[in-house]
Amino acid sequence: MEKDVFIGNLTWKDYEARIRQDNPVVLLPVGALEQHGYHMSMNVDVLLPTAVCERVAKKTGALVAPAIQYGYKSQQQSGGGNHYPGTTSLDGATVTSTIQDVIRELARHGIRKFAIMNGHFENSMFIVEGIDLALRELRYGGIEDFRVMVLSYWDFINDPEVIEQLYTDGFLGWDIEHGGVFETSLMLALYPHLVDLAKVEDHPAATFPPYDMFPVVAERTPAPGTLSSAKTASVEKGELILKVCVDGIASALTQEFTD
Amino acid sequence: MEKDVFIGNLTWKDYEARIRQDNPVVLLPVGALEQHGYHMSMNVDVLLPTAVCERVAKKTGALVAPAIQYGYKSQQQSGGGNHYPGTTSLDGATVTSTIQDVIRELARHGIRKFAIMNGHFENSMFIVEGIDLALRELRYGGIEDFRVMVLSYWDFINDPEVIEQLYTDGFLGWDIEHGGVFETSLMLALYPHLVDLAKVEDHPAATFPPYDMFPVVAERTPAPGTLSSAKTASVEKGELILKVCVDGIASALTQEFTD
Amino acid sequence: MEKDVFIGNLTWKDYEARIRQDNPVVLLPVGALEQHGYHMSMNVDVLLPTAVCERVAKKTGALVAPAIQYGYKSQQQSGGGNHYPGTTSLDGATVTSTIQDVIRELARHGIRKFAIMNGHFENSMFIVEGIDLALRELRYGGIEDFRVMVLSYWDFINDPEVIEQLYTDGFLGWDIEHGGVFETSLMLALYPHLVDLAKVEDHPAATFPPYDMFPVVAERTPAPGTLSSAKTASVEKGELILKVCVDGIASALTQEFTD
Amino acid sequence: MEKDVFIGNLTWKDYEARIRQDNPVVLLPVGALEQHGYHMSMNVDVLLPTAVCERVAKKTGALVAPAIQYGYKSQQQSGGGNHYPGTTSLDGATVTSTIQDVIRELARHGIRKFAIMNGHFENSMFIVEGIDLALRELRYGGIEDFRVMVLSYWDFINDPEVIEQLYTDGFLGWDIEHGGVFETSLMLALYPHLVDLAKVEDHPAATFPPYDMFPVVAERTPAPGTLSSAKTASVEKGELILKVCVDGIASALTQEFTD
Amino acid sequence: MEKDVFIGNLTWKDYEARIRQDNPVVLLPVGALEQHGYHMSMNVDVLLPTAVCERVAKKTGALVAPAIQYGYKSQQQSGGGNHYPGTTSLDGATVTSTIQDVIRELARHGIRKFAIMNGHFENSMFIVEGIDLALRELRYGGIEDFRVMVLSYWDFINDPEVIEQLYTDGFLGWDIEHGGVFETSLMLALYPHLVDLAKVEDHPAATFPPYDMFPVVAERTPAPGTLSSAKTASVEKGELILKVCVDGIASALTQEFTD
Amino acid sequence: MEKDVFIGNLTWKDYEARIRQDNPVVLLPVGALEQHGYHMSMNVDVLLPTAVCERVAKKTGALVAPAIQYGYKSQQQSGGGNHYPGTTSLDGATVTSTIQDVIRELARHGIRKFAIMNGHFENSMFIVEGIDLALRELRYGGIEDFRVMVLSYWDFINDPEVIEQLYTDGFLGWDIEHGGVFETSLMLALYPHLVDLAKVEDHPAATFPPYDMFPVVAERTPAPGTLSSAKTASVEKGELILKVCVDGIASALTQEFTD
Repeated sequence: MEKDVFIGNLTWKDYEARIRQDNPVVLLPVGALEQHGYHMSMNVDVLLPTAVCERVAKKTGALVAPAIQYGYKSQQQSGGGNHYPGTTSLDGATVTSTIQDVIRELARHGIRKFAIMNGHFENSMFIVEGIDLALRELRYGGIEDFRVMVLSYWDFINDPEVIEQLYTDGFLGWDIEHGGVFETSLMLALYPHLVDLAKVEDHPAATFPPYDMFPVVAERTPAPGTLSSAKTASVEKGELILKVCVDGIASALTQEFTD
Repeated sequence: MEKDVFIGNLTWKDYEARIRQDNPVVLLPVGALEQHGYHMSMNVDVLLPTAVCERVAKKTGALVAPAIQYGYKSQQQSGGGNHYPGTTSLDGATVTSTIQDVIRELARHGIRKFAIMNGHFENSMFIVEGIDLALRELRYGGIEDFRVMVLSYWDFINDPEVIEQLYTDGFLGWDIEHGGVFETSLMLALYPHLVDLAKVEDHPAATFPPYDMFPVVAERTPAPGTLSSAKTASVEKGELILKVCVDGIASALTQEFTD
Repeated sequence: MEKDVFIGNLTWKDYEARIRQDNPVVLLPVGALEQHGYHMSMNVDVLLPTAVCERVAKKTGALVAPAIQYGYKSQQQSGGGNHYPGTTSLDGATVTSTIQDVIRELARHGIRKFAIMNGHFENSMFIVEGIDLALRELRYGGIEDFRVMVLSYWDFINDPEVIEQLYTDGFLGWDIEHGGVFETSLMLALYPHLVDLAKVEDHPAATFPPYDMFPVVAERTPAPGTLSSAKTASVEKGELILKVCVDGIASALTQEFTD
Repeated sequence: MEKDVFIGNLTWKDYEARIRQDNPVVLLPVGALEQHGYHMSMNVDVLLPTAVCERVAKKTGALVAPAIQYGYKSQQQSGGGNHYPGTTSLDGATVTSTIQDVIRELARHGIRKFAIMNGHFENSMFIVEGIDLALRELRYGGIEDFRVMVLSYWDFINDPEVIEQLYTDGFLGWDIEHGGVFETSLMLALYPHLVDLAKVEDHPAATFPPYDMFPVVAERTPAPGTLSSAKTASVEKGELILKVCVDGIASALTQEFTD
Repeated sequence: MEKDVFIGNLTWKDYEARIRQDNPVVLLPVGALEQHGYHMSMNVDVLLPTAVCERVAKKTGALVAPAIQYGYKSQQQSGGGNHYPGTTSLDGATVTSTIQDVIRELARHGIRKFAIMNGHFENSMFIVEGIDLALRELRYGGIEDFRVMVLSYWDFINDPEVIEQLYTDGFLGWDIEHGGVFETSLMLALYPHLVDLAKVEDHPAATFPPYDMFPVVAERTPAPGTLSSAKTASVEKGELILKVCVDGIASALTQEFTD
Repeated sequence: MEKDVFIGNLTWKDYEARIRQDNPVVLLPVGALEQHGYHMSMNVDVLLPTAVCERVAKKTGALVAPAIQYGYKSQQQSGGGNHYPGTTSLDGATVTSTIQDVIRELARHGIRKFAIMNGHFENSMFIVEGIDLALRELRYGGIEDFRVMVLSYWDFINDPEVIEQLYTDGFLGWDIEHGGVFETSLMLALYPHLVDLAKVEDHPAATFPPYDMFPVVAERTPAPGTLSSAKTASVEKGELILKVCVDGIASALTQEFTD
């Protein structure tokens, strides 16, 4: 059990020993329970960053904390909107407090290197606020050397060649990738039993006005809840994405956190 | 994928259909990341209620929401105390808000029957508060028929004969069962790779004064962090516990939630 | 006035002198305004811990801070439920903040030894959270030696002989003691004008399923709101309880707080 | 017991009956634990409004809820400042939540007429905010007819003749009345054992610049903590004040709350 | 641009240089958006303290931070009540947090001398609480020398001769000055285009009972929303007020903040 | 005064009349006090959306509420980071509460059409949360028809031809536009006295890794605090931007809010 990268699978003695010996990075996957179209399960935003974390941890010697399973409210232009059944979201303050509390505790354990792997776009700013409040508090407690990296794993897909391989018809931006080629390919590579490509509706990419309306005008989201079609998703694309992300993130961790 | 009991594994359409057809109970496992002695992993309080939920759901047609992975601060007399490395706890308000937010969202989906399966003693009152705040808010929104059951699965072990089978030397109460025969047997039955019986320290049951001190007097907790010895834990006991809990809870759900 | 144990009855100069000379323990009674059956007034949970505090203070040289008069929401299995008229409860966060604020101020005065005497079961975890938040904050302010004892006075009745004297027909646990022999005997010994034994309804002890339902199923609480019958309450039992509690708590304070 | 004006001294059945029969006003004394000079105890701001409430209740048929024992932070120009030992104050949000919670509960009981008797100047705005938040919430719950009166009992001393009798050397405003003739006379009339006139320091009335400094410049408060001298306080003045306040408040309640 | 007293008009380099060279006082105007009768615009409580700040800053070398544009809820006896259309108020906690956040940031910049110029009576206690929470937090962060002055500019009109010049028929107190001679004269002197004296309703000064009712009894406020008549307002009076306030405040700043 | 588009410049009667007659849209500029390089003042994020609002209001008959002057913490990749002196930011919860409070009040006035004009990228998600919490609360109060548009004015520059005119050397995205050609041109067109082009440092556009570090690695931000060079900014570009934004936003308002 002591080789496991998941903190939850360790005893406290093994975890304590790891901290003392390695001063390891802890990775925290932060996800959501959110609709991902007709063709995919609702746990995508937890499963994917967790899978990336696991692989990065194995490669770098990091540890993975239990994933945050619920995230901030889905926004129409990035996740279809929070009006879908199944999408189960937290208030911003709850996301923020969760992050703050986890950091406070990791710091108490002796952890000083922490990376948050976001799997749900809408979480970003509430994660940032949780970090800021936690670091402020750690400073009050005399801890000045706790460092946090925040990343959304898709941001590591930035090599134009890779993007071209994934989007042979042209890349339209990460926002509309909700339930599209990117996430679906990764799910096909990792959790194929949670994808049913036959149910993909091949709708054109969603287009939105340059503003948001609240309450959401529901019919502006394509009916399946996806913002672009996953039709050209494939296992191979998923494996490519995974490799690029894992390599890129592992390398970033090494660079930032090597003392 | 649509037969799955885990909401996270469903598409939103399957979930929506289930609500419309069955008015199902949703079960929420609430756990903790907490030390459980030298011999057991730290995710016990999440794994066990999740496993119970899964079995209950299969038996009764309920659905299982993603587990809450972090819980309230470990208390010395029930969990050894919050000073151990690895134990990673939330402030009470964070636990409460998380429960409140999840209920608000489930109610929006059309869910009206909800059961919280607590796997970590210290969560109880903050769960209760989350429910109270959520039901208050639902009433403001005109929803009066949302009902919640809260249970700790161990409370269903109340048949003296069963208790005698589990504790041949006498039962000392649930409080000191932290990392003891009960939890270890369940883990042996369900996740044997996360238990190493050879590391169980056969210490006498912890005894505490009739009050608590803060900060905790660390040496009052037995060194491994467990409150009683797991030496007599066994797969068979674990299977017995599981059967009794699952049967009891399934029957309670049926009784309370059959319209 | 300077001999008084109640801080409220002292001038600030007398209080200041006491702190400088004795480094005294401060005791805080925390109660509730809660129904206690047909036969007893609703201030039981404030009066009793205050009376215990007063006697303990006289015996040990401690001081008593003004009691918290309102507590957390009554729970069905320990207090009958929060649906009764008269029961007037605070949200958990309010209880927690009150405790946190009082500790912050006592620490500013120079107090370093603090004991919270809880008279209302449901308060416990919100008191614990208030202490944890306060001690965290004191650490940020550089105060590391503030210590807190938390106790519910009934937990000091643990001598089997005493329990047998009180419960000649067998003891059924503290939970169902709401408005029963224990509290009624104490009130008879201390505030007989607030008890009318003629109104005691001699109902069997309440039994509950191994879970809670919200909203409460009101008819599961015995109609008077008490969870067991106070029929065998007596002044003598009250005096016995008082003596055992005061002696036990005085001795615990001495043991923990003697420098 | 059923004739008692203090809700805490009633059984829930008697309280319930009172609400059904009389639709009574509930009075809530809100105080503080605050230094009141060398010559007076620190519970003045609780004792005085409670005594006024009791008399008003007896005269009008109102009920008195348990007093709030701690209040908002003492300000230099009205209470000497919050730096004195003994003064034990709550954050503003705690005061506000307490008021909000109590109102929510009283409304649940069926109370619709509520009066808050403030005994500590600094509480005023946090009480007002608690009322505003509570009434907002009651509206969300469909309750539109809950009415609240807020008063500081000293505001009923507004007859110039009375003021002349109290302040033969001229009245200098309520602000500097902290621990002065007004409060001391009332204490002499009601709780003479908590006053020691021999310890009154006959200092001139405090004068302050037309602004406040934080942190407080401690030496701007007269050393005893009082803002004017209580030297001319007397039992007779206390009885006069009490009579005028009780009559005035009783009459105000009748006028505002008679349906 | 570097001579400007308004921080918002400076570059960060100029601001940084000012801090390093002068250790300047920062002034923060705090206002409200609130009805001010038939004859005056709703931004009075922002415009006036901002104008005073500007003049004081020019005179003393202080800097002016951007004004807080919204304030706490208008109270009937000081602002007519919060039921008027147009009056747009914040919850108390929002006012408090805004002050706390601004102070935390100014302290980070190196500012140590801060003065809050309140233009809306009802803000006072929520400003005080924001300061207290901020200074507490700064102490946790090791900053002990941050000082704050709080003032309402009208409190500097305390010379009886000046008051007589302003109120030839007798001064009735600042409370009822809402939209009266004082504010109207200042507006006439500073922003005449936002005043229409022809619309002043010459009603007698508002009189209120010695308590407040919630919800407000709307008809107790004079119909225009003003609490006294502005009929005798004049440019000359406005100029006099401005001069007296600016001189008095400049002198107070010098006295308190000269190292 | 009644023709003014700024609510603050209206009397409450004029405002009330406008609501009754026109059911107008209210526009709220939300900004920040944030460093904008060596060459520009720190109030850019307030001045620009306010100027856009004013022009849009004049064109469409909308009203403009007083601007929010402080915003959420500057992020390194969009605003240079929150470590600069002068940058004065609020916690996320403060931004959220401010928005929520303002919406609650506007709804009370009778406003039903509301548009938030964001001038500071980092505010976005905290504004969204404020809207969500406010609309939830309005629903509890029975108001279902309050609609909110949120927009960042730069999102209306999406015509490739316009972008080409502005960025003759190629457009690099809005993120790095902090203090660059876009904002500087607008300031030159609107507030030339707050810009000193001579101080523009012609640095290459900032490049960042695909993640964020906290605490910020300060040297990753170009020294002036700007993320791209403003060297090619001009009055003409500013006027073009203004025209395109105002036209686009006016047209969006008309489309969404015409009943």
